[in-house]
Amino acid sequence: MPTLVMKFGGTSVADPERIRRAARRVAEAKADGHQVAVVVSAMGHTTDELIGLAGKVAREPARRELDALMSTGEAVSAALTAMALEDQGLRARSLNAFQCAMRTDGGHGRARLEGVDADGLHRMLEQGVIPVVTGFQGIAASGDITTLGRGGSDTTAVAIAAALAVQRDGGCCEIYTDVDGVHTADPRLVPDAPKLGAITYDEMLELAAMGAGVMHARAVVFGQRHGVPIHVRHSQRPEPGTMIQRETPHMESIAVIGCALKTDLGRVHLQGLPRTAGVQAQVFSAIASRGLIVDDIIQTEGANAVDLAFTVEHGDLPEVKTAVGEVLQRLGSGRIDLEIGLAKVSAVGTGMRSHAGVASRMFQVLGDAGVPIRNITTSEIRISCLVPQEHGERSLRLVHEAFGLALGERVTLQRQLGTV
Amino acid sequence: MPTLVMKFGGTSVADPERIRRAARRVAEAKADGHQVAVVVSAMGHTTDELIGLAGKVAREPARRELDALMSTGEAVSAALTAMALEDQGLRARSLNAFQCAMRTDGGHGRARLEGVDADGLHRMLEQGVIPVVTGFQGIAASGDITTLGRGGSDTTAVAIAAALAVQRDGGCCEIYTDVDGVHTADPRLVPDAPKLGAITYDEMLELAAMGAGVMHARAVVFGQRHGVPIHVRHSQRPEPGTMIQRETPHMESIAVIGCALKTDLGRVHLQGLPRTAGVQAQVFSAIASRGLIVDDIIQTEGANAVDLAFTVEHGDLPEVKTAVGEVLQRLGSGRIDLEIGLAKVSAVGTGMRSHAGVASRMFQVLGDAGVPIRNITTSEIRISCLVPQEHGERSLRLVHEAFGLALGERVTLQRQLGTV
Repeated sequence: MPTLVMKFGGTSVADPERIRRAARRVAEAKADGHQVAVVVSAMGHTTDELIGLAGKVAREPARRELDALMSTGEAVSAALTAMALEDQGLRARSLNAFQCAMRTDGGHGRARLEGVDADGLHRMLEQGVIPVVTGFQGIAASGDITTLGRGGSDTTAVAIAAALAVQRDGGCCEIYTDVDGVHTADPRLVPDAPKLGAITYDEMLELAAMGAGVMHARAVVFGQRHGVPIHVRHSQRPEPGTMIQRETPHMESIAVIGCALKTDLGRVHLQGLPRTAGVQAQVFSAIASRGLIVDDIIQTEGANAVDLAFTVEHGDLPEVKTAVGEVLQRLGSGRIDLEIGLAKVSAVGTGMRSHAGVASRMFQVLGDAGVPIRNITTSEIRISCLVPQEHGERSLRLVHEAFGLALGERVTLQRQLGTV
Repeated sequence: MPTLVMKFGGTSVADPERIRRAARRVAEAKADGHQVAVVVSAMGHTTDELIGLAGKVAREPARRELDALMSTGEAVSAALTAMALEDQGLRARSLNAFQCAMRTDGGHGRARLEGVDADGLHRMLEQGVIPVVTGFQGIAASGDITTLGRGGSDTTAVAIAAALAVQRDGGCCEIYTDVDGVHTADPRLVPDAPKLGAITYDEMLELAAMGAGVMHARAVVFGQRHGVPIHVRHSQRPEPGTMIQRETPHMESIAVIGCALKTDLGRVHLQGLPRTAGVQAQVFSAIASRGLIVDDIIQTEGANAVDLAFTVEHGDLPEVKTAVGEVLQRLGSGRIDLEIGLAKVSAVGTGMRSHAGVASRMFQVLGDAGVPIRNITTSEIRISCLVPQEHGERSLRLVHEAFGLALGERVTLQRQLGTV
């Protein structure tokens, strides 16, 4: 009897009717012979509404209390979902973070899961009772309630699945959401981008980092570490979605599995930095200390000076400029140039490791189309090109087409790649 | 440094502005040199809204889940109140039932408090931290969340006050609400009814049972058992309210401290019951098994038959009729008469024990005014008359006047009573 952890996101439990639909979905899985545990997010926009309330009682709400406040959203969904399940004739019990000993480190608003009462969950499953666990939250050693940050309920679900070792009996963690799975590109930008049946953890992580918003990276990392297959699927449709899983030999035969576009990027160019040791550390620790994230760092070195370039999100540019300006003043040399209106188009695929010519094909198609490439970065399974934002969506479609990702074309691509 | 437990009801934390006002009230108490613990109810109509949601996901919501659901209301208020206190520059921490080990027996929807982590609360107070405790809820030995029933937050507050032994250092439990205290009669019916400075636990219990809705009986019983003075006062006004406390010699000098009116009562009259042993038990166990409450039972006995009469709330009459009808059929004799449209006017006072003539004065004033008395019941400190509902409010005002309860008149009454 395979075990499923079924996680329903905010839109899937947004109102009583959807909660009842989710309960029917669980009832079907039970009827199919699965053992089921459920994880729920807060209903619809509850979390934002609670944060709004907090902003009305305090100028700067205490983080401990903000976590305690937000955690109530999932407690409401869990109780309602358990009720709906019992109304379907099933046995169910809502469990908050205290009740299933969901332990975290102490970081408020960004806590990390450390463990859960797996024995208690196993006992409930053996008794035919469906545990309905509040996502997004845990309890620190101090007894304080902590939350995991945005997308944290996915991490909770994967952690529960890992604790139950669902993969051992052929089970998985199902993420029910408002999209039907992971596509070869964002279907809003590339309408003929087909849904992928399967994708590796690494590919999903690269796509997520490059702007594909289906799954939160932390949940995928957690799944990878514990070998939990993650099935992303639509909560209102019956057909399977996308399985995020370990690499299989079949996957390696595909060079590029998907592509993504990240927009609203800015580029910072530092020229004429002194060639003293530690100059890079000074620059990036000044940025990191403000919680800002940089990407695509490139360094070029001349005889007497160092040039550094990196990208940041548009909205972070002013703060980055302040942080770096202070460093330049301290160093007594160097100047800063900012460029805005950039986008990054990326091609991702585990098979890239064994297929030559992927990069050259990508540069070729962008070049032929007259798209200027401002920067290139790669990982073992990803190639990214920074391009002017006005060329972003067109570039994504060109790359999608170049690697034959549209419906039914992929096989052709493999032959083509063999000849490049 | 006296310790105060300040409890804010649903209307006192109904919105962010009121929560901020409650926080200012706590800040004032701290500035006056008090140690303070806070207990909060759910905001405004939150509990009713949550019950409404439950009714939309399940035909008959599971009671365990209903308790888990309702408990979130107080968790929201507690977190917001703690934020508002910290925003005032105070140190505060919200505590749910898990975090302060608020133990109950297992009854869902009507649990009874069994204990709380007094040491933890003391530690917080000693460190200058204000604990903000969720009212209305506790944890059963099973780890399930249980709620205490309507008015349960008052009981939580008194229990916290008892655990902290506030009376030992001159502290008390303050119940902040939307009325300014306990009056000699309901001011909506008797506009000149003055607010009482103090009242005994027994008097408050009699008044509450007779229809005065200021405090829930269980909280008063809890306060009486542990000797916790309970100060009922208005959350938006500075002046003191009413202290519910142990009897003092001064209180005994007042014959009647207040009066109350309970309306929408019906009377059941059973005639010609057989004179066999246990007939009363059969009648009242049939009623009690349906969770119905009866009052004012009177029995008269003839040579061959027994007559029974009792009052019930109007809304319960149909179900009582069904229950009793089944018993009569089983007994094979007796008939049932129903009377509707009755009200009960009561006079309450600890001093009644030492003052003669209270009952006769009450009957006299109602008789002189032409009010027919259908039934009389008494306790050691209460006299109640059942009257037709159309005479109810007038009877209340007559009794209020007869015992000199209007502002400034009470001293006169004491002399009068001495001569009756």
